[in-house]
Amino acid sequence: MRNNDEILALFENYLAQIQLPEEPHILYSPILYSMSGGGKRIRPTILLLACEAYGGNVQEALPAAAAVEMFHNFTLLHDDIMDNAEVRRGKPSVYAKWGENVAILSGDAMMIYSYQLLQRVPESKLARIMNIFTPMALQVCEGQQYDMDFETCSKVAVVEYMRMIELKTSVLLAGSAMIGAVLGDASAEECRKIYRYALELGLAFQLQDDLLDSYGEQAELGKRIGGDILEGKKTYLMLQAMSRADEQDRDILRHTYTDTTLSEEERISRVKAVYDKYDIPHFVEQQISLRFERALALLGELALPEERKEHLRVYAQNLMGRKK
Amino acid sequence: MRNNDEILALFENYLAQIQLPEEPHILYSPILYSMSGGGKRIRPTILLLACEAYGGNVQEALPAAAAVEMFHNFTLLHDDIMDNAEVRRGKPSVYAKWGENVAILSGDAMMIYSYQLLQRVPESKLARIMNIFTPMALQVCEGQQYDMDFETCSKVAVVEYMRMIELKTSVLLAGSAMIGAVLGDASAEECRKIYRYALELGLAFQLQDDLLDSYGEQAELGKRIGGDILEGKKTYLMLQAMSRADEQDRDILRHTYTDTTLSEEERISRVKAVYDKYDIPHFVEQQISLRFERALALLGELALPEERKEHLRVYAQNLMGRKK
Repeated sequence: MRNNDEILALFENYLAQIQLPEEPHILYSPILYSMSGGGKRIRPTILLLACEAYGGNVQEALPAAAAVEMFHNFTLLHDDIMDNAEVRRGKPSVYAKWGENVAILSGDAMMIYSYQLLQRVPESKLARIMNIFTPMALQVCEGQQYDMDFETCSKVAVVEYMRMIELKTSVLLAGSAMIGAVLGDASAEECRKIYRYALELGLAFQLQDDLLDSYGEQAELGKRIGGDILEGKKTYLMLQAMSRADEQDRDILRHTYTDTTLSEEERISRVKAVYDKYDIPHFVEQQISLRFERALALLGELALPEERKEHLRVYAQNLMGRKK
Repeated sequence: MRNNDEILALFENYLAQIQLPEEPHILYSPILYSMSGGGKRIRPTILLLACEAYGGNVQEALPAAAAVEMFHNFTLLHDDIMDNAEVRRGKPSVYAKWGENVAILSGDAMMIYSYQLLQRVPESKLARIMNIFTPMALQVCEGQQYDMDFETCSKVAVVEYMRMIELKTSVLLAGSAMIGAVLGDASAEECRKIYRYALELGLAFQLQDDLLDSYGEQAELGKRIGGDILEGKKTYLMLQAMSRADEQDRDILRHTYTDTTLSEEERISRVKAVYDKYDIPHFVEQQISLRFERALALLGELALPEERKEHLRVYAQNLMGRKK
C-alpha cells in the first residue's frame, strides 16, 4: 500500500498530464493557473487513500480524485470574486489577475470540467458516484451561501455556524472519502462510516483553522495572525465568546474591529483578552480534540485490517499537524 | 404522437413539480424565479420530440429535458452579470434583482442542479448522455468566451463569428436533440444526423435573430429595433457588410454607433443604409434559408417513417416563424 506521499506524487503526476483544450486561451489558462497553484490536495488524497484501503485500483480512481480537486478549485475561483479576494496561495487570484468576467466563466468551465473528469470512472459505478458528487457539490454552494448570509446577520447561533462549516468544508472531504470507498468496492455501510470519519475530521480541521487564525504562529500559518478579528468575522471563537461573555464584554467583541482609535495590534489584543477571559482557546482546543478523536474512533470501526487503516490515520494526523 | 404544444405542456407540468430545497432561501429562490420566467423552452422541446420520434418514453426523458433547460437558464444568469444586463424576458435579471454575488452562486447551484436532473435518466444510458451533455456544456462556455473576446477585437472574420454562434447557441440545441434520440434508442448514426439537423437549425435561428434585430417588427421582436447597431455589436450583418464595403462605408460602419452628433434613429438608419447598399439583408435571408433547407434535408434523411418526422418539421417551422 502506498503512503500519503506516494499517493500525492501519483496524483500530481496524473494532474500534470491532463490536457485542457488550448483555445479559447483566456477560458482555459486560468484553470491551469489555478490547478497548478499548489494547495494541500487534501480531497484527492483522502479519496485515493480510501480507495486503496479497500483494495481498489488507485489508477482507476485518479480521474475522480482530479474531479474533486478541480471542483474545490472552482469554488475558490468564485469565492474569491464574492469576497473580493486578491490573493490566493500567495499569488494573485484569478479574479485579481484576469478580472471578474474571466473568473466567472473560467470557474464555470472548471466546474463542468470536473464532471468531464468524473465521467472517466468505470461506467458500472458512474451513477453511484454522481449521486455522491452532485448533492455534495450543491451542499458546498449552500455552505457558501450561509457563510455570506452570516456576514450581514446580527446574531448567528453556534449550531448554525457548525452546520455552515460542515456544508462549506467538511462534506467535500467526506464525499471524497466516500467516492474513494465506492471505487474500492466497499459496502454501503462502510461507505457511510468512512464518510462520517472524514466529516468529523473536516470539522476538526476547520475549527483548528479558526483557532490558528487568532492563536497560531505567523511563520506556520503563512498569513497574519488576527486577520479574522480585524475583519470582524463570526468565527467559532467569536460565537462561543459571544455566547459566554457579559454585556460589557459582548460590546467589546461587537465593536472593537471597527474602532479606528485603536491600532490593529490593539484591536487584536483587546478581542483576544476577552477570548482568554472566558477560556475560549482552551475550550476550542477541547472541541477540536473531541472531533479528532471521534474521527479516529470511526476509523477504528471500519471493517478493515489495522494495517489498511494506517495511512488514513496518518492522513488525519498530518492534516491536523499532530504527531499522534 | 404528441405535437409541439402537447410536449410543451407536459414539460411545463414536470418543471412545476420539481421541488428545490427551500433553504438557503437566497440560493434557491433565484433559480425558481429564473426557471419560471418563461422563455420558449426550445431545447427541452426538441429533446422530447426527438425522443418520441424514435419511439422512446417521453416520461423518462423529462428529467433530461429539464436539465438542458436549467443549464440554458444558468448560462443566462451568468451572461447577464458579464454583460451588465438588467432585464431578462421583460423582468429584472437575477443580477439586477439580487446583485452579483447571488447571481454567481445561484447560477453555480443551477448548473450543478442540471446534473442532479440529468442523473435521473435510466442508468444504462447515463454514461452516454453525460458524454454528450458535458462536452456540450463546455462548448457553450467556449462560445461565450469568444463572444466576449470579439467585443475587444478590432477585426472578426465571418467564419470565426459562425463558429462562435455555433458554440454559444447551436450546440446546445443539437446536443439536446441528440440526448433525446439516445433516450429513444436511436442508432449512433441517427444520433449524429439529428445532431446536425438541430445544429443547422440553430445557426439559421441565430442568423435570423441578428437580421430581426435590425430589420424586424418591434411588436413581434418585443424589443427595440436597432439595438445591436446602437451597441456597435459585431453581428453577422455587420461582419458581412464590413467584408463588402469600400473604405468610406467601412468607416461609417465602424464609427457611427459612437457618433454623438447623431440621434439614435439617425445612427440606426445610417448603418442600415450601408447594409442596404450592399444588399446585406437579402444575402442574410438567403443564408438563413440555406441553413433552414439543409436542416430539413437532414431531417429527410433520418431513418424514420415520414409521420414520425412531422413534429420535428413543424418544430423547425415554428422556431423560424415560417408557415412552410
